Amino acid sequence: MSNPDHPTLEKEAESPAPTAPPVASDIENQTPVIRYGVTAIEKRWSREELLTKVSMGLRGSGCLFSFLAFVIMASNNHGDNEDFNEYEQYRYVLAMAIISMVYTGVQAVRQFVELYTGKQWLSTASLQWINFCGDQILAYLLISATSSAIPLTDSMKFSTDYDPVFIESSAAAISMEFLAFLVLAVSALISGYQLSHQSYI
Amino acid sequence: MSNPDHPTLEKEAESPAPTAPPVASDIENQTPVIRYGVTAIEKRWSREELLTKVSMGLRGSGCLFSFLAFVIMASNNHGDNEDFNEYEQYRYVLAMAIISMVYTGVQAVRQFVELYTGKQWLSTASLQWINFCGDQILAYLLISATSSAIPLTDSMKFSTDYDPVFIESSAAAISMEFLAFLVLAVSALISGYQLSHQSYI
Repeated sequence: MSNPDHPTLEKEAESPAPTAPPVASDIENQTPVIRYGVTAIEKRWSREELLTKVSMGLRGSGCLFSFLAFVIMASNNHGDNEDFNEYEQYRYVLAMAIISMVYTGVQAVRQFVELYTGKQWLSTASLQWINFCGDQILAYLLISATSSAIPLTDSMKFSTDYDPVFIESSAAAISMEFLAFLVLAVSALISGYQLSHQSYI
Repeated sequence: MSNPDHPTLEKEAESPAPTAPPVASDIENQTPVIRYGVTAIEKRWSREELLTKVSMGLRGSGCLFSFLAFVIMASNNHGDNEDFNEYEQYRYVLAMAIISMVYTGVQAVRQFVELYTGKQWLSTASLQWINFCGDQILAYLLISATSSAIPLTDSMKFSTDYDPVFIESSAAAISMEFLAFLVLAVSALISGYQLSHQSYI
């Protein structure tokens, strides 16, 4: 219906050319701030999941190294003076290997169960503190055991009284214990990072 | 003006007794949320300052213990076999005592200067990471040196070839090194806590 009193109004109503509706990418570009926030959260989640997996892998390998140290040292008995049980340093290495094996094994299993079932035994905050303190204390004990056994093995090498097999086995067990220490020290750093970047989302 | 149609309304309008204006404490009580927020921030600041002071005290005592370990071990020379320089374990203890003394000394001085002048050499975040990693690595090295020297000193005690003064001096230096380790391990825990509770205010 035409309106002769207001020709301009009619012209204006007709003037806007029909435009295509905005495509999906344009809509996303219109809200860069919200989009950025979502991306940041997604990045954070994926980083946290990656860190959890790395931490699980580290503890799993820590368990493996401790198990190897335990087996090699426990079987290091060649009679008389060549028995690990005769030396307190080697007994210390064995004890720490057992403790570290149990701790890292339980932690790795817990993390695996949490990651694939979503069930948590404790609150995240207390778990993070337990992880951090546990990793740190274990790392101290492992480096202590390693350091106490190295000079003894070193001095045995300069003596002709000992079977090289006994010395090499001891050195292998100590090396495994040192690898377990390295792994737990890195794990303690990751636990410290996780503690310092607690997610409140 | 009375309103005979609504006597109850008039009664209600007159009924409220004049009350005294709220006193200052009442005004503060009316905004518990804001008041709580301010108190929380104040508490946090005082807690952070306390932690910084505790950390400074720990590093200062760590420096003292390391200095004692250094002096006792460096003067532990009674000729022939009774020279600390003859044993790699004791040389390790001496080297770690020197490194720990320098690190804790520099850190304590830095913290003292920061606390009383407000000048900072580095950003808070990078400082917190340096503190955490430095304390942790130093603690590992100190417990390693201590653990390596203890079995040697222990075995000397069962031998009659050594002067008790030499053995006791070594034991004293090792004890000082262990105290320095304990202090740095606690300092590493505090650094971890500070890292996990970074202030963004």
